[in-house]
Amino acid sequence: MTDGAHSVGFVGMGLIGGSLARALKKTGFASSITAWDHDPEALERALELAVIDDAAESVPALMDAVDIAVLATPTLACEALILEMLNNPGRAQCVTDVASVKGDLYRAVLAAAPVGAALYVPGHPIAGSERSGVAAADAALFERHRVILTPDANTHPRALELVHALWAAAGATVQCMDVEEHDSVLAATSHLPHVLAYALVDALAQSPIRDDIFRFAAGGFRDFTRIASSDPVMWRDISLANQDALLAALDDFCEHLNTLRDSIATGDGAALENTFRSAKTARDEFARDLAARDRVAS
Amino acid sequence: MTDGAHSVGFVGMGLIGGSLARALKKTGFASSITAWDHDPEALERALELAVIDDAAESVPALMDAVDIAVLATPTLACEALILEMLNNPGRAQCVTDVASVKGDLYRAVLAAAPVGAALYVPGHPIAGSERSGVAAADAALFERHRVILTPDANTHPRALELVHALWAAAGATVQCMDVEEHDSVLAATSHLPHVLAYALVDALAQSPIRDDIFRFAAGGFRDFTRIASSDPVMWRDISLANQDALLAALDDFCEHLNTLRDSIATGDGAALENTFRSAKTARDEFARDLAARDRVAS
Repeated sequence: MTDGAHSVGFVGMGLIGGSLARALKKTGFASSITAWDHDPEALERALELAVIDDAAESVPALMDAVDIAVLATPTLACEALILEMLNNPGRAQCVTDVASVKGDLYRAVLAAAPVGAALYVPGHPIAGSERSGVAAADAALFERHRVILTPDANTHPRALELVHALWAAAGATVQCMDVEEHDSVLAATSHLPHVLAYALVDALAQSPIRDDIFRFAAGGFRDFTRIASSDPVMWRDISLANQDALLAALDDFCEHLNTLRDSIATGDGAALENTFRSAKTARDEFARDLAARDRVAS
Repeated sequence: MTDGAHSVGFVGMGLIGGSLARALKKTGFASSITAWDHDPEALERALELAVIDDAAESVPALMDAVDIAVLATPTLACEALILEMLNNPGRAQCVTDVASVKGDLYRAVLAAAPVGAALYVPGHPIAGSERSGVAAADAALFERHRVILTPDANTHPRALELVHALWAAAGATVQCMDVEEHDSVLAATSHLPHVLAYALVDALAQSPIRDDIFRFAAGGFRDFTRIASSDPVMWRDISLANQDALLAALDDFCEHLNTLRDSIATGDGAALENTFRSAKTARDEFARDLAARDRVAS
């Protein structure tokens, strides 16, 4: 059923949508690519670059023209657009998205488009780039990367099958997960580290010895704070969209940090060494697994 | 007065002592290198590798044989050894060390070796390596790196002059700083980030969704947690040695983190964006300065 080429539509034509469009054309999964974007210039550029074949005049017009619809806009625009897509399904057999947070969107869909929810397969490609915009679109962006889908009992099997096939065609490894667990995992591994890096740099930047701090910081500090150079608007939106899971991860972290603080304050070297040692063991194991994944993948 | 070659002695012959010894012989700053280590095998290896010319039988014997004495042992061994060195100055004209924390050692010296304190120039090379042991000694380890010295009104000018010349001969850039400020700067840029990385990995390793967390963590998480793979014993000792400055930096960080937590909990997007944006600005500026330093240096 997933054999043969599909007409694929994108709501939002930036780096992620453009890269997926290029990958799907290159592998022959897509027979045609249509897109709508609130910015007409993005559509013009995508047409010029042959990333897309057609520009749609509206979201409902796009939904009438495609088998598979992908929402690929910034987080804050997602809720209104996914509802517009699901309430105007046209001839689309499935709708998916690429937002970093899944629970808030899914709850909005269940509340405001309960029938359309059967077509919706929430998705999150664990990939990105420092660049943005359709001109930076790269057909290889998702190759050997993971994509998490969070279908549940509401999801139509045909919709899941199509979205799974779409990401596989782009070279990604697809794994399914419960929507709440997705948001907890991403809060722990990505959203919380961003908040910690932003908080640290913010604290140091306001320190009375700020100049010496930044003068004597070196490569280790640069690595640790790299994510504090991320886009503030994107991370504002992610922090608010994943509020519950992020606060839970933050509070859990602070409990562990306070225990470490107590050990430092009371001079409890044995407790400090014990915590540092078990963290090192877990982190070394993670780094080995990640290196093995990269070797298998390349 | 610093012209001509010097006899240089090392108490502790590992990676740092061995690398400095190689650099000083290579540049001709040292006419001879003598070392003492609690581990006779380290001294034998250093003699075989021609990193040192002579092994001393005791710390006082070493002090009788050298112009300049360098303490280069792990943090925990430093206090007893620096006191033994300063209370048995022999013919040494200065004593320096390479410990990451300076205040605790300096306070111990003022209390227990107040006369010898004039010879002591506390030092901290901002350089290191994943490797350890004298076999990994590298004459280029300190080239283009910064060394912080924390002399004060007690320090004999001749001692400062010699230690400054020693590090300059090894290719390092020497900067002087108040001892308390050194410990605050290092707490902020190095010790606190290590504690945060250890606390985060420890919290995640004990999470009920631990397996999925480590399965879906990627390169950004690897960079952020790299320092949690550091030596637990070394970081236990540094955390305790720099207790006061580390707790101050930690409490300042937690205040900023709590403000961010409140903004997330109350959905205050404007406050979040504001903090993220000023942190990004400071971090981008730091990364540019660091890149410029590296360009100038190479």
